[in-house]
Formats: sequence, C-alpha cells, structure tokens
Amino acid sequence: MRHNQQILLAARPLGHLDEGHFRLAEGPVPALEAGQFLMENKYLALDAGFRQWMNAGASDNYLSAMPLDAPVQSIVLGVVVESRHPDYREGDLLMGRTAWERYSIADGSDLMTRIEPAADIPLHEYLCALGPAGMTAYFGLLDIGQPRAGDEVLVSAAAGGVGAIVGQIAKIKGCRAVGITGGEDKCAWIREQLGYDAAINHRAPAGVAAQIEALLPNGIDIFFDNVGGAMLDTAMAHLAERARIVLCGAISQYDTTGEHTGVHHMWELITKRARAEGFMFSDYVDRYPAAMEEMAGWIRAGKLKSPVAITTGIEHTARAYCDMLDGRSLGKCLVKLD
Amino acid sequence: MRHNQQILLAARPLGHLDEGHFRLAEGPVPALEAGQFLMENKYLALDAGFRQWMNAGASDNYLSAMPLDAPVQSIVLGVVVESRHPDYREGDLLMGRTAWERYSIADGSDLMTRIEPAADIPLHEYLCALGPAGMTAYFGLLDIGQPRAGDEVLVSAAAGGVGAIVGQIAKIKGCRAVGITGGEDKCAWIREQLGYDAAINHRAPAGVAAQIEALLPNGIDIFFDNVGGAMLDTAMAHLAERARIVLCGAISQYDTTGEHTGVHHMWELITKRARAEGFMFSDYVDRYPAAMEEMAGWIRAGKLKSPVAITTGIEHTARAYCDMLDGRSLGKCLVKLD
Repeated sequence: MRHNQQILLAARPLGHLDEGHFRLAEGPVPALEAGQFLMENKYLALDAGFRQWMNAGASDNYLSAMPLDAPVQSIVLGVVVESRHPDYREGDLLMGRTAWERYSIADGSDLMTRIEPAADIPLHEYLCALGPAGMTAYFGLLDIGQPRAGDEVLVSAAAGGVGAIVGQIAKIKGCRAVGITGGEDKCAWIREQLGYDAAINHRAPAGVAAQIEALLPNGIDIFFDNVGGAMLDTAMAHLAERARIVLCGAISQYDTTGEHTGVHHMWELITKRARAEGFMFSDYVDRYPAAMEEMAGWIRAGKLKSPVAITTGIEHTARAYCDMLDGRSLGKCLVKLD
Repeated sequence: MRHNQQILLAARPLGHLDEGHFRLAEGPVPALEAGQFLMENKYLALDAGFRQWMNAGASDNYLSAMPLDAPVQSIVLGVVVESRHPDYREGDLLMGRTAWERYSIADGSDLMTRIEPAADIPLHEYLCALGPAGMTAYFGLLDIGQPRAGDEVLVSAAAGGVGAIVGQIAKIKGCRAVGITGGEDKCAWIREQLGYDAAINHRAPAGVAAQIEALLPNGIDIFFDNVGGAMLDTAMAHLAERARIVLCGAISQYDTTGEHTGVHHMWELITKRARAEGFMFSDYVDRYPAAMEEMAGWIRAGKLKSPVAITTGIEHTARAYCDMLDGRSLGKCLVKLD
C-alpha cells in the first residue's frame, strides 16, 4: 500500500498567513473506487490566488472556503499510477486541481488536463509558462487586455509567477512594459532578466503614484493587476482613455478577513471610457493547446523566459508558500516532490 | 440687439448643491465673429452628470471644471437665428453642448448635431429619448451591457431620465428589468408607467442588499449604474457570472469634494468573470442616426414611453436642476424657454 504525505490547512488564518496554519499528515493511500484514478504528483504549484479560499466564509461561485484539516487545494502535475477510470491510464501525465499531497485520488473533474510533454521542454514548464501561470498571463493580457503595439502596459506583482510572463508577452506584442514590485533588487531583476522597460519599487519613498506619473505621463493603457486594494486604486487614478484593467488577483487583500480595501476611482472608468474585467484561466481550457503551442514557440525562439523558484520536498511547501505571499521569491514558485 | 439671459455658476458648491450656487445674468448678445453662429435655445437639458464638473478641481480628460461666473454648461436644443459660419444656416435645428442661456454663440464644435425633426415626434424628444438621455440608455445598455433575452437587468436611478429608458429597452430585448429608486411612489411609477418587472426602494428599511437578494436570487446579469458609491458596491456583491456593469453616472458622489466612496467588491469581478465599463454617449455620435431611427420606431409602435418633466422659464432652471439631483422628479428633466 502506498504511503501518502499531505499538507493540511490546520488552522483558519485570521490575518497574516504563516507556516503555523499548516501541518504535514501521513498515512496510507486508500483503495480506489470505480471511476477513480491515482496520481503520483511530481510538482505542486504555489498559487497566490488560493490564499483567498483559506479564509473562513470565502465561498464564492468559483470555489468554496477550503475545509480545515483537509489537504490544501492546489494545481498539481502528476502521473497516473493506478486507474479504475476508463479515460485515464497508467503513465498519463496530468495537470489538475487536487491538493498539496504526494498522491491524489481524482475522478477526471477539477480542471484535469492531459499533458503531452515535448522532449525539449522541462517538465516543470507545464506548471509555469505552459501551465496555470502562463495561461493566466496569456489569456489575461491578450483576451482581456487586448494589447496593441505601442500600448503602455503596467503590471503589478511583476516579479511573480504571472507578472514575470505578462511583461514578456507585452513586449512580444510591441507594448512598453512597466512592472511594479517590492525592492530595488527585484526591480533590477525584472528589467534585466525579463526585459521590462521600467520598474516601480512600491517600497520606495517616492510612492507608487508619483512613480506612475513619472514613468507613464500619458496614462496606463493596460493595467494587469495581481495585487488589488490600494495599488489597484492608485493605478485607476492614472488611466489613459480606453484603458483596460485586467483583474487577475488581489494578493494584497487575501490576509483580510473582512471587507476588501475600497477602490475610489470608479468614476475614472466613466470619463476615460475604461474597462475593468476579471477572468479565470480555467475558463480557457479549450484554448490551452493553441496557447501552449504559441508559448512553447516563444520559449524555443528565446523570446520568453520562464523564471521559476523550485523548492524540493513536500515538507517545505508551507514555508515556500508563505515566502511567496510575503514577496520573498522571484518567478513562479513550485514544489518538486523528491 | 438681442437680449440674453444666462444662468451662471455663482459659487463653487462645497457639498450639497442648492439654488444659491447659481444666479441669473442678463445682457446684450454680442455681435458674431466670422465662423460663429447664434442659436436661440428652445430647451435646456438637465443632466446630473454635469454636476461633477461644478466642483473645483473636477477637471479630467472629458471636461474641465466649469468656471465660476460663467454660464453653466449644458446640452441644449436650439434654432440657428443668425450665422457667420458656412455650414450652419438660419432655421437649422441643432443639439449641442453650450450652456443654460437663451442664446448661445457657437462654432460647430462641442457635440453640435443637426436635428431633422419628424412631424409626428414632439420637439422635446430630441433632448429625451432621441437625445442625450436616450442615446446614453441605448448605447450604454446595448453596446456596453450586451443584453441577452432572459438576462436580469438592474438599473439604479431607474426613475431618472436615463434609467426610465434603460428599463424599457431591456424589456424590448427580452430581459427582466428591476429598477432602484427612492420612495414607494416612484417604485409604483416605474412598475406601472415604465413596465419595470420589479422595483427596489432604496429608502425602505429592508435595505438595498436584502431587496436585491430577494428579487434577484440568481444574481445580476447587467447592472446599469447611474448612482455609484455604496449602491454600486452593493450591486457588485450580487453579480451573476459574466455580469456586465454599465458605468453611466455616479449621482451619489457629485456632492463629494474629496475622494469618492470606496467600492470593496472588485474581487467579485474576478470570481464572477465580470466586467465594469464606462462610456460617454458623445462617443457614439456617428451612430446617432440609426439609433434615433430605432428609438423613434419603438415610440411610434407604443413600445417606448419617454417620460419627461418640463419646467417652463429659464429663471426656474436652477431650482429644477436641484430638485432633480435631490430625487424630486420623474423622467427626463428639461427647461422650456418661453
């Protein structure tokens, strides 16, 4: 019988999330029922968005609040090692939404997508540029943002898993890309490693508004927002006409158990004839193959780097996740199961 | 020499607008310069949106703050009575953005649109259903809202000039229309006179949120918002998936000299994959003729009523405008010059 390791949500975070809210549980993997299959996970994706559903009462029509003492929900990449499901066979490589665990029992629901890995693409890319982070960046920027050559694109959390890719796609599409991140070192990294034209350090004394005014004097054409709250509000005060706000995430708000921070600049959406629109990468599953092909082409052509921060060992998952939320990582954060 | 009467912005409102912020000025109409023409105004439109630009520092890239001691900017309907402009002749009927005044000197800029009045349509309709209010309702609902038959459409300020028309177009398009207005009498009026399926009294003790939950248990597909602030926030907490928020106005906020009220439910735009988008009717000027023809057809077919509150006499303009902002009117408010 296989031995599982799972990271449980052990306590409901009331404010700042830390490692103490999680615990490692071990035990045998139960036998499969008909219609189920067993995945052995290779990589766990650390996605900031899931933080929201760790809060009590976070249920919305996308996901419900994660139950306590259950494995933390997560996108994972794994291989089928046993199957009682007619559509899944041993050896199938799958990406899907299961949990932070070595073995996942699944039934084919929950965004389960079959991956046909290319020989020249590292496996972890299927959770990065060719996975949720990449698909989020791709469909968010291209479908919601509708970039045109020459557009001024501002990206928050630009050193994060999604933001690192958004800026590069913006450049591929002929836009000027400005990224917001925390710290001069991260500013240098997004400029030098990712090709952002300019960077805004949200920790600098000048403040974000003054830096936006200096770097984007004609206003923002596209704001790709991963942060929400006050940063979203500040950007909304600096829109160009016909601006598009791609609402991707709200990492600044996930530690809030009550109401999110208010946004005061809705009026600007009227006078600028601007649009703010939310999306979920999972709605585009039918278009993943074409998007993955295009992204893989950009990777092969050297146009797209896929920066990744890989932590090895499931027992370090909680620490890596909290480090990411606290801004102590660069690029897409993954856990590799050893 | 012609004698003009003009309503000036006499004092900058710092909070609630009242009649004391305006004064009537009289004097001769100056001689035209080359490239100008003189309009004798027949009707002045009272538009809540202009309230925003009466505030100090209200300049944005749509309009600048109205200057003090100058005539209050307004959409008007008038006839050319003298012209030194090659494109405008005596007798031309025009709609444009000039001011609350008996005579306007214009040069053909400022949204000036030639009107060819139909014999069976009352002249004032060219400032109502076939004018700015109607064009705002038409393009806002149809272009930004993208209604589909069966959609649940919620309209704020539903008894106002724009809201009165939005609900009726929503019904023509096969939607269910729910209107928000202040007072049981106005609720009855929008149901019985305009055909709204249901009405929410925002002054009722139950509160708007509870009434939305009761009347729209599956969520709002389209929110056509004329009010902004807390009402917008409340509606954003009750969106259906793929909802569209048509940002038309923010009448609750125009008396605010500082920051507008915060909106706390941006996150819902993500989980509901919803869109909030602003617009200005004046951007659709090229499409007015087709829209006016369709709207006139609905009026002739008895499908669209165009409720109007006409005040006669330019000296009553300020009172009528303040009454409208305070919610003491029904339908589109106009001043008829006697």
